[in-house]
Amino acid sequence: MSEGKKATLISYRPDIKVMDCTLRDGGLVNNFAFSDEFVRALYETNIAAGVDYMEFGYKASKDVFNEADFGKWKFCDEEAIRAIVGDNDSDLKISVMADVGRTNHKRDILPREDSVIDMVRTATYIHQIPSAIDIIEDAHAKGYETTVNIMAVSKVNTEDLDNGLALLAESSVDTIYLVDSFGAFYPEQIRRLTDKYLHVASEKGKSVGIHAHNNQQLAFANTIEALVQGASLLDATVCGMGRGAGNCFMESLLGFLKNPKYNLTEIMRFVEKYMLDMKAKYDWGYDIPYLLTGVLNSHPSTAINFIKEKRTDYVKLQQELMDIE
Amino acid sequence: MSEGKKATLISYRPDIKVMDCTLRDGGLVNNFAFSDEFVRALYETNIAAGVDYMEFGYKASKDVFNEADFGKWKFCDEEAIRAIVGDNDSDLKISVMADVGRTNHKRDILPREDSVIDMVRTATYIHQIPSAIDIIEDAHAKGYETTVNIMAVSKVNTEDLDNGLALLAESSVDTIYLVDSFGAFYPEQIRRLTDKYLHVASEKGKSVGIHAHNNQQLAFANTIEALVQGASLLDATVCGMGRGAGNCFMESLLGFLKNPKYNLTEIMRFVEKYMLDMKAKYDWGYDIPYLLTGVLNSHPSTAINFIKEKRTDYVKLQQELMDIE
Repeated sequence: MSEGKKATLISYRPDIKVMDCTLRDGGLVNNFAFSDEFVRALYETNIAAGVDYMEFGYKASKDVFNEADFGKWKFCDEEAIRAIVGDNDSDLKISVMADVGRTNHKRDILPREDSVIDMVRTATYIHQIPSAIDIIEDAHAKGYETTVNIMAVSKVNTEDLDNGLALLAESSVDTIYLVDSFGAFYPEQIRRLTDKYLHVASEKGKSVGIHAHNNQQLAFANTIEALVQGASLLDATVCGMGRGAGNCFMESLLGFLKNPKYNLTEIMRFVEKYMLDMKAKYDWGYDIPYLLTGVLNSHPSTAINFIKEKRTDYVKLQQELMDIE
Repeated sequence: MSEGKKATLISYRPDIKVMDCTLRDGGLVNNFAFSDEFVRALYETNIAAGVDYMEFGYKASKDVFNEADFGKWKFCDEEAIRAIVGDNDSDLKISVMADVGRTNHKRDILPREDSVIDMVRTATYIHQIPSAIDIIEDAHAKGYETTVNIMAVSKVNTEDLDNGLALLAESSVDTIYLVDSFGAFYPEQIRRLTDKYLHVASEKGKSVGIHAHNNQQLAFANTIEALVQGASLLDATVCGMGRGAGNCFMESLLGFLKNPKYNLTEIMRFVEKYMLDMKAKYDWGYDIPYLLTGVLNSHPSTAINFIKEKRTDYVKLQQELMDIE
């Protein structure tokens, strides 16, 4: 961790930025079926709460996905975002995610000057990094801030990870994200991995981000662990809304951060008005099946199906998961 | 942390012991109304799962509390425990908790040779430590293993804590517990406090324990943080059952620990059979009001009442809590 990045529990680091991923990771829960009222209220909440970035969803290709099967935040058309934010006359920056192999970035990502979007995040598996770099360089050349989110790192061996990070270090990407897709990492692993990412990133003037999942109820702990170690771009969602066990809770994160620009009360107001209904309608968050996939470093899909089928035979699930491994 | 206490995520430390507090901290949720079937099944589960200690409840004085107002595990009469465990012909040790000012230890704690209890834990606030030492010395002289659990440390100033720890260092107590009563501590604070406790304790051949609460969803993270730092007695409850936001989940902890004596499947079996009904009947676990009391380092009672009254006006609660402070 560089000397400039030290803070106590009373002070704060100005380099810290908070990214709200409620629409994007939460969209995986409700198939992106957010009402415009919800999205507008979240946008206004994020501005009032001092959140730095708001991710509106995926920039998915309509050649790959059928538009009728998803809410509009799967595609994040320029007009859809503008219908909410106008010209976004605020300090909140707008982000979208491009999945390698599921986006037509050359066609669908406009030149920065024609778009209200500020940042393009590229999600990639380790073996797709060359394709990710294609998207990154295209977005960078078009004028966007860029991040790369290497997914499922808990399944990647050290040699491949080192080689992937080395490739990304040579790219134009601004921020490299440590992503705990399966909620499998413990804080001591997050410490070591953040160090590794920072070592590669900071040499090239890049920063490191953290995106955690809550399978073992460690999403918040792992997020602040990465933060203490020097990560500066922090992902969170309101009420932890996100696939399976969900994400780091925005309300926990803003409760921790000491920068006076952040305002927890605004998030509370949004939760009170919008999230209780959402929580009653859709199912996400810590539950035993997610603990088991986290402990066993497995994709959460098995746990998601188990819960959907209203099964509670946890012993059998544990055995099934060990058979998959 | 002493050299002998290092382990990787693959190896394990033989000095680690797990304490199941489901009946004791969980009893604060259901007024100790556990059926004998439940208690017997939990006892057998703990044996099969390799858990080291099982806390049956409080050794409360019937002069202070009316017996008719509570389930029997508020009092832990010798016959009540024996009705479950017989002579406890197992490796599982049995513990009870004595609250300073609420126990008649001279009368109610039998000589060790007449009891099936192995350990007496004394819960104390910082200003009660001399009284706690009375109980500790009595229990020690009677032949019990002893711990002291200093509560609400997040409200104690450093000078008082240092003086309290110094007094306890001179006592016969075997283990000094770091207790996060309000779920207010972050892992970096747990690291520093565990170091402080260990420094005092290890000089006198004592060990350190950790008892965490889940207000900020940090109970498990803080427990393994203390563990990594050198704490060796780890409190947990099945499904995190405990007052307010509850405790460190036993299933998370056994999922983490690598000692082959521990068996997560046995806990899963118990959850499947007993905890789903319990969870449907009683209310505990992470919720926004507990986050707020945790962040604001307040007693959870305000949040417990807020939830009991089915209120959801979180913004107002936050203001009320700040007024209390």
